[in-house]
Amino acid sequence: MKNDLKALTAPSAVALIGASDNIGKLTARPLVFMNRHGFVGKVYPVNPVRETVQGLKAYPSVEAIPDQVDHAYILLGTEDVIGAVEDCARAGVRVVSVLANGFADAGPEGAARQERLVEVARDAGIMLIGPNSTGVIDTRSGFSCTTNAAFRADTLGKGRLAVISQSGSLIGALYSRGRARGVEFATLISAGNEAGCGVGELGATLLDDDGIDGFVLFMETVRNPEALADFARRAHAAGKCIVAYMLGESDEGKALAVSHTGALTGSAEAVKAFLSSIGIATVNQFEALFEAPAALARKPRLSGRPKQATVVSTTGGGGAMVIDQLSLRGVEIAACSTAAREALTAKKIPLGHGKLVDVTMAGTNYDTMKAVVARLIADPETGVLVVAIGSSAQFNPELAVTPIVDAVAEGGDDAAPVFAFPIPHAEDSIRMLEAGGVPAFRSVEACADTIALLVNGPAPQPGVSVDIPIEARVLVERAGNGMLNEVDSGAVFATLGVTKPNQVVLPPDETAPETGDLQFPLVAKLVSGDLPHKTEAGAIRIGIKDAAELANAIADMRNTVSELKPDARIEGVLVQEMCSGLGEALIGLTRDPLVGPVVTVAAGGVMTEIYKDIAVRPAPVSLETAREMISEVKGFALLRGYRGKPKGDTGALAAAIAAVSSLAGLDTVAEAEINPLLVRREGEGIVLLDGLIRKR
Amino acid sequence: MKNDLKALTAPSAVALIGASDNIGKLTARPLVFMNRHGFVGKVYPVNPVRETVQGLKAYPSVEAIPDQVDHAYILLGTEDVIGAVEDCARAGVRVVSVLANGFADAGPEGAARQERLVEVARDAGIMLIGPNSTGVIDTRSGFSCTTNAAFRADTLGKGRLAVISQSGSLIGALYSRGRARGVEFATLISAGNEAGCGVGELGATLLDDDGIDGFVLFMETVRNPEALADFARRAHAAGKCIVAYMLGESDEGKALAVSHTGALTGSAEAVKAFLSSIGIATVNQFEALFEAPAALARKPRLSGRPKQATVVSTTGGGGAMVIDQLSLRGVEIAACSTAAREALTAKKIPLGHGKLVDVTMAGTNYDTMKAVVARLIADPETGVLVVAIGSSAQFNPELAVTPIVDAVAEGGDDAAPVFAFPIPHAEDSIRMLEAGGVPAFRSVEACADTIALLVNGPAPQPGVSVDIPIEARVLVERAGNGMLNEVDSGAVFATLGVTKPNQVVLPPDETAPETGDLQFPLVAKLVSGDLPHKTEAGAIRIGIKDAAELANAIADMRNTVSELKPDARIEGVLVQEMCSGLGEALIGLTRDPLVGPVVTVAAGGVMTEIYKDIAVRPAPVSLETAREMISEVKGFALLRGYRGKPKGDTGALAAAIAAVSSLAGLDTVAEAEINPLLVRREGEGIVLLDGLIRKR
Repeated sequence: MKNDLKALTAPSAVALIGASDNIGKLTARPLVFMNRHGFVGKVYPVNPVRETVQGLKAYPSVEAIPDQVDHAYILLGTEDVIGAVEDCARAGVRVVSVLANGFADAGPEGAARQERLVEVARDAGIMLIGPNSTGVIDTRSGFSCTTNAAFRADTLGKGRLAVISQSGSLIGALYSRGRARGVEFATLISAGNEAGCGVGELGATLLDDDGIDGFVLFMETVRNPEALADFARRAHAAGKCIVAYMLGESDEGKALAVSHTGALTGSAEAVKAFLSSIGIATVNQFEALFEAPAALARKPRLSGRPKQATVVSTTGGGGAMVIDQLSLRGVEIAACSTAAREALTAKKIPLGHGKLVDVTMAGTNYDTMKAVVARLIADPETGVLVVAIGSSAQFNPELAVTPIVDAVAEGGDDAAPVFAFPIPHAEDSIRMLEAGGVPAFRSVEACADTIALLVNGPAPQPGVSVDIPIEARVLVERAGNGMLNEVDSGAVFATLGVTKPNQVVLPPDETAPETGDLQFPLVAKLVSGDLPHKTEAGAIRIGIKDAAELANAIADMRNTVSELKPDARIEGVLVQEMCSGLGEALIGLTRDPLVGPVVTVAAGGVMTEIYKDIAVRPAPVSLETAREMISEVKGFALLRGYRGKPKGDTGALAAAIAAVSSLAGLDTVAEAEINPLLVRREGEGIVLLDGLIRKR
Repeated sequence: MKNDLKALTAPSAVALIGASDNIGKLTARPLVFMNRHGFVGKVYPVNPVRETVQGLKAYPSVEAIPDQVDHAYILLGTEDVIGAVEDCARAGVRVVSVLANGFADAGPEGAARQERLVEVARDAGIMLIGPNSTGVIDTRSGFSCTTNAAFRADTLGKGRLAVISQSGSLIGALYSRGRARGVEFATLISAGNEAGCGVGELGATLLDDDGIDGFVLFMETVRNPEALADFARRAHAAGKCIVAYMLGESDEGKALAVSHTGALTGSAEAVKAFLSSIGIATVNQFEALFEAPAALARKPRLSGRPKQATVVSTTGGGGAMVIDQLSLRGVEIAACSTAAREALTAKKIPLGHGKLVDVTMAGTNYDTMKAVVARLIADPETGVLVVAIGSSAQFNPELAVTPIVDAVAEGGDDAAPVFAFPIPHAEDSIRMLEAGGVPAFRSVEACADTIALLVNGPAPQPGVSVDIPIEARVLVERAGNGMLNEVDSGAVFATLGVTKPNQVVLPPDETAPETGDLQFPLVAKLVSGDLPHKTEAGAIRIGIKDAAELANAIADMRNTVSELKPDARIEGVLVQEMCSGLGEALIGLTRDPLVGPVVTVAAGGVMTEIYKDIAVRPAPVSLETAREMISEVKGFALLRGYRGKPKGDTGALAAAIAAVSSLAGLDTVAEAEINPLLVRREGEGIVLLDGLIRKR
C-alpha cells in the first residue's frame, strides 16, 4: 500500500468519478465545495454521458485523463464501484475513497462484494478509504472532497486537529460544532467500512503531518486492533494526543453499531480495556471529544507535579460544581497548600475553609485573582489548577480573567497547568483565556473530562513477553480439540504454577476406591469434558467423610449423570482433599472477536454477575497489571483485610492471573477459566478448585 | 408572613439600603441595572451619608421615605443588617432581601446572628430572602434588583421559566447560558441561606404567577423539606414542571456544600429519594437544567402512549449515539411498529434493520422525512419520537427540518410528542424547530436527560397513612431511652408482624438452662442494649446441640464479655431456634438530618456495603413502594428465582419493609434496623434474626 500523505490530504490532481452536473444532487457536492474553498490541486470530473460537469470538461474514465491523478472519489452506485476502482488501478491512482454503501454493511452478498473490492485495491497498491465514506477534507489545501453537507460553509476554518470517524455524518457534526466553539481542524476523514484502510492506518499516515497535533476518533467498532495500536503507540511517542468517543456503551447502542456497520459484536469492557491499554483515551461527553484534544494538544505538562487538581473560585456554588464533577471522574482534589495559605492569608485574601479555594465575590478583582493564581501555579504541591470564574466573566473580564492570563504569562515553564471554566456564558472571556494559553471550557462536564484525561489518562502499556512453560505447551498440544477434562486442564494450570489440591484419579467404574494419603473430607467429581457444569449435572459430591461414602458417591453420581446426560463420556473420578480459604476468585481468558485475547478477573459467585464487578485487560498481562486488576475489583475487599479480618494472598493471586493470561500465547487455546480459585491467607497461596481449558 | 407575589417580583416601590453612588462598586449595581432595564416601579436609595445616589435623592432610612416601600434590598455589611431590617419593619416593608454573608455560613456566632435576624423579620411579618442573596430579578417588570454581574446585559430577555438558586452566582450563569440558547426566564431568585424564606416558600409564592410555566432549581442542600414538598405537590397539580440540579453527588462535593453553606450534611441517597418522592426531577447534565424545563414547559403529552422512545435518523452513527444515551438513562427504545414499517416500506422508504429507524442519507429529503414522521406520530405504538437530524440540518433545513415541523403541525392533538437533536451545529434549524413546537437540543446528553424525565420522571407520591399497632406504641413508650435490648426490640417488631424464631429468655446467670419445646440446634445471645454488635463482643453462639452445650456457651459468653466489655449490663440470655432460609435482607429506618425519616432496604452482608446496592425512600412507605424498593436491589436477584432456583417470599419481605417504615410515625424512635431478616421460600414468610430499636 502506498502510504502517501500528500495524495491523501493535498493531492495534485483528483478525479470525481460520477460527479453530477446538477448541483442539487449529493454527487455534485465535492466539486461545489472544492470550488468554494479554493482547492489548490486540479479536479477532473469523470462522467461518460456528459461533455462537461459544472463547467469542467468531463472524462469518460480516469484512464482517459491526460494527467497523473493521485486521489479519486467514487460517487457511483454500489454496482459500479469495482469497475471504477479497476479504472483507477489502470490509471495509477494512489488513494481512492468510495461513497456507496451496500458492502459489508449489507449482508453476505455485500460482504462478498467488499472482498472483491479490497482485492482489486490491494493488487493495485491503492490506499482504499470506505466504502460508505463521505470523503476526505483538508482545510489547509481546500481539499473538501466530501458529500457531507456541513462543508457547504462559506469558508473553512484551519486548525491543528485531525478527525477520523467511522460515521460519515459525524465529520460534519464535529467540524461545525468545533468551529462554533473555536476548535478548528486540519483534516477530517470518514473511514466508512474500513475495508482497506482503517482508523489505524489513516491515523498512522497523518502522523507524518507536522500540522497535526492531536486526533479525534468517533468509533462504532474496532476492526483492526493491531493497526490501531501501532498508530496509538507512535502518536504517543510523538506527543500527539488521541481522544475517542466510542458508541455502544449501552446494550441497545451496541446492538445498533453492529447492525448498521456490519461489524462483529465485542464486549464493551474488552474494547474499553484495549483502547486504554494502547493509550487511547475515551470520553463520555460528546463535546469533550473536541474540547479535550484541543486542550491537550497544547501539551499542558504535569511533569513531576502531583496528580491532583486544586480548584479556585469566586463562587462557592460554581466551585463546588467543578469539584463534584472532577471527583465523580476520580480526580483527586487538593486544598491550598499550607505555605500558600499562609502567604495569601497574610495578604488578607479569603480562601474558604474546605478544599475549594473560595476567594468569594469580594475576591473578584485583579489583584486578588492574580496573587492567588500566581502563588498556586508556583506551588510544587499544586497539580492542575482549575479556576471557576463567576458572573464577572461575562462582562468584566478585567476582574477575574485578565489576572489569570497575566499570572500564567509570568508563571514560567515549570508552572502548574491552568484550566478555566467560566460559570456564565462568556464567549469573549473564553477567547481571551485561550489566546493567553489557558484552555477554557463551555461546560463543566467537558472541563472535568479533560482534566481527568490529563491527570489519570491512559498511556500505551509496554508489550508483555511471557514464557509459557514447555510442559504447558506439550500438554495443550497433546490434548484433543474442544473442552479438556478437569484432570488435563488442572495439569496445564499446574505447569503454570497454579496449585491444585492433593488428589487421585480413579477409574470411572471404581467401586472400592483407594485414596492413599489423602486426608478426609474429600471432594469427588466425574472427569469429563462433556460436563463443564458439575453441580447442574450432579457430577460432584463434597464433604465425603470416608471410603464407604466415597464409593456410594461415585455410584450415585454415575446414576444421576446417566439419567441427566446419558451421552456424556466419563473418563474417571477425580478425588481431591477439601480445601478452605479466605475468599475466592475467578480468572478467565477469552478471545474477544474485536480486540483479541482478554483476561477477566472477578471475585466470582453470583455477585460478580449481578454487579458486573470485573477487571478486564488485553492478555497477556504482567504481574504489575495483574495487581492493578485485583485492586479494581471491589469484591476483593474481603481479601484486602476488610474490617480487621486477615488479608488474602493477593501476591499469589496476581501470579496466577499473569500465568493464566499467558495462555493467550497458545493459539490453540480458545478459552480458559478458573472458577473458583481459592485464595488463602497472606503467604499461604492459592488453590485451584475448578478450572477448564477449551481448545479451538 | 405576607405572601405577596407582587411585592416579590414587581414591587411598586423598592428601597436599596446601602446603595453606592460609585458605579464601580458592587452595591451600586442594583440601581444601575434597574435603570438600564426600565424597572416600572419607584426606586429609593437609602444612604444616610449622601444627599443623592446615582442622581436620585437618598434617604437616611426606609422610614424616612415618603412612600409605601414594599420591597427592600439590604446591601450593607453584616453588622448593619439587623438594624436595617428593623428600619424596614417600622416602615411596613413586605419583602426584604439581604446581600451580606457572615450568618449561618460563618460559624456559631454567625448562626446566632441569623437567629436574631429571622426573629426580627418574623415578628414584623416580613418575607425575608437570604442573607447571602444576590437578589431578585423579574424580566417582565424590569426589576433587576441584584448584584449579579450577568444582569449588566443591555437588554433582558423575557421568558416563562423561574429560577430559584441557593447559589447566588448561578442565577447569572443560568440566565446568560439560557439566553445564549434561546431559553429565557420570567423570574430569578437567589435564595442564599434561606433563613426566612426558602426554595419551597419562594416557589409556592411564584406558583400564583400565570406567566411562569416551569421551575429551575439549583440546590446545594435541603433546608425545609416540608415547604419544598408543598411547593412541589402544588406545582405538579398546576401542571408546572420542576427540574433540579443537586450538588454533592460526590463525597468531595457534599463536604463542600456543607462547608460553604453552613447546612447540615445529609445522605445524597436520602435527598435524591426525597426529591423524587415529591415529584422533583433531578438532572446530572448542567445544560439540561434549563433545556429540560424549557422543553417540558411546553407540556408534551404522553397520555395513553407507551413509555418508550422511537428514534429516527438520516445517519446511523448519530442515531446510535442518541439511542446509546437514552438507554444509559433507562429509556426503553422501541423499533418502528410492524404496521408503520409495512406502510413506509410500501413507499420504498428505507428504515434499517435494528431498532433505529434509519432512513439513511438517501432519505434526507422533504417527502421521505415528512412521511416517516407523520406515520410514526400517528402510530399508537409510538411513545416519544426523537429525530436525530444529520448534516443537512446546518445549511439545508428544507430537507429534514421543515418536514418535521410540517408533520407536527398537521399531526393533531393526540399525536406523539416529537423531540429533535441536530447532529451538527445548527442554530437556525433549532430556532425553526422550537418555533414549530418541536423542542430541539444542542447536546445529545441534555436531549436524553429531558426525554428520560418525560418518560420516567418522578411524580409526587401520595401520602402514606399507616396505623401503628397500639401494642407497638406502648412497648416503645415503656422502654427506657437509648438502645432497646434485643428482646424488647424483637417484641416491638413482633407487634408489626415481623415474626421472630421460637425463643425463651433465661436469666443472665442461668447455669442449668431449660429450653422447653425449643428444637435444637439453638442460638444463644446475651441480652443487652450495650452490646449491639454481638459477634464482635463474643455475645452470641450458634449451632448449640444440647442443654450441656448451652450451659457452657452461656458461661463462655459471659466470661468473654466481662473481659471485652466489662461495663455492659447483661439483662438475660435469649435462646432461639436456628432458622435457615433462601436469603437475607436488611431493613433500616433512620432520620436524615436534611429530609427526615427514610427507610433503607438492602440484601445485607458485606456486598451491600461494597456495592452500595440499596433502595431508599422517605418513610413510611406503602406496600407498593416496598415492592418497588425490592425490585431495585440487585442483590435480591437471589430471591427472584435466580438461575432456576426457588423464589423467596418477597411479599412477606415487602410487608416487613412497610411495617418497619411505619415506626417513623413514633417520634421517640431515632432508628430501627433489622439485619438480617431471613427470607424463606415463597409462601413461607420471613424471620427476624437480629433487630434493634434506638430511642432518642
